[in-house]
Amino acid sequence: MNLILLSPQDIIAEGSAVVRDPRRLRHLREVHRVTPGAHLTVGLAGGQMGKAELTALSEEQATFRFETLAEAPPSAMPVHLVLALPRPRMLARTLEHVTALGVKEITLLHTRRVEKSYWQSPELTPEKIHQHLVLGLEQARDTKLPNVTLRRGFRPFVEDVLPGLLADRRGLVAHPGMANACPRALEEPALLAVGPEGGFIDWEVEQLLAAGCEGMHMGSRILRVETAVTALLARLF
Amino acid sequence: MNLILLSPQDIIAEGSAVVRDPRRLRHLREVHRVTPGAHLTVGLAGGQMGKAELTALSEEQATFRFETLAEAPPSAMPVHLVLALPRPRMLARTLEHVTALGVKEITLLHTRRVEKSYWQSPELTPEKIHQHLVLGLEQARDTKLPNVTLRRGFRPFVEDVLPGLLADRRGLVAHPGMANACPRALEEPALLAVGPEGGFIDWEVEQLLAAGCEGMHMGSRILRVETAVTALLARLF
Repeated sequence: MNLILLSPQDIIAEGSAVVRDPRRLRHLREVHRVTPGAHLTVGLAGGQMGKAELTALSEEQATFRFETLAEAPPSAMPVHLVLALPRPRMLARTLEHVTALGVKEITLLHTRRVEKSYWQSPELTPEKIHQHLVLGLEQARDTKLPNVTLRRGFRPFVEDVLPGLLADRRGLVAHPGMANACPRALEEPALLAVGPEGGFIDWEVEQLLAAGCEGMHMGSRILRVETAVTALLARLF
Repeated sequence: MNLILLSPQDIIAEGSAVVRDPRRLRHLREVHRVTPGAHLTVGLAGGQMGKAELTALSEEQATFRFETLAEAPPSAMPVHLVLALPRPRMLARTLEHVTALGVKEITLLHTRRVEKSYWQSPELTPEKIHQHLVLGLEQARDTKLPNVTLRRGFRPFVEDVLPGLLADRRGLVAHPGMANACPRALEEPALLAVGPEGGFIDWEVEQLLAAGCEGMHMGSRILRVETAVTALLARLF
């Protein structure tokens, strides 16, 4: 928790806020080991960042008084990530990684090789997804939550949604065996599609290419989804 | 397990091998769900890769007959990774990520902000380290184990070991606030030094720079060690 992310309900008055949830209180006590008088980095959800003084800390709550709130959050990564739904634990970690890296648009997509049971996972509830996004923001010192959209149909996504997304973005599909290597240091916004463990099936790749995406690969090594996504984003931007 | 990595003791005769450990047997049965007659990707530890036929599968063992062993493992990433010892769970995952990415030389280093207790973790036993390296190789279809060296003294490493490592490698220190951004697509071998959670202290950065490393940064976002290392390696190579 490199930033205390304050939501509108944490703000109790002009210039002060209270944190009451056990996770953050425990972190303040056990990891930060702060006492009143400490100055901590804070951010307003969706807004500015700055410093606040911890004015009181009890078992039930921590009270802060804002000192400065003049810093803009770091710039976003100009990418829409379309990710075949990973298995639940991998999803949780991947959401944290990509949020920390600055991704703001995430579509979780069904593809043939996604196990149907993954769509029933408690990790997919809005509360759990929100929790992982907040961990990513707190890690990277950012305040702007990514948008996460679930798409349980591949064909409706590719036919009805993807063309609109590609109107002002370069589309890229990461898939083994494509002719070109992953491009580096893009200067334009992009959409990055990443398949599930086991990959997209050929028909899915054809549909993505037909919709206007370019195929590319990350070499012959087979990477776990969380490793591959981080590596692809770091190479692209 | 995208490759069944066979050690010399698994080879029972010219052209055949037996796997007896519960982890791999379980994976073959429950994830691969194979039956005799299946063709699987295999590799000889440190050597070639190819295909083998599963000729028998019991509760106690799986027997393979090699068909081809003509493929060289994928090329290594030309980097020596010097990593401030992360906390144990992060270490485990980071070893898997970087092994899958092709890193072959890893130094785990003590620095001021590494908690001393981490050096007592069971994750640092040679057996546990080996286990994570094998998981990385099995994931990426590689056969060459990385070398992992533990260095419990920062100063002796920097004074006595680092100069030799930098004789034929470009040294890079990833540290927030450095003037230059992480370079991309290096064409030469490199040494990459990455600090702990909380970063190197200033004196440590000065020592690394004085030894001939260049400082560089990955932007203003604070990344977890496992995210940062994967992102740095993907950008460098």
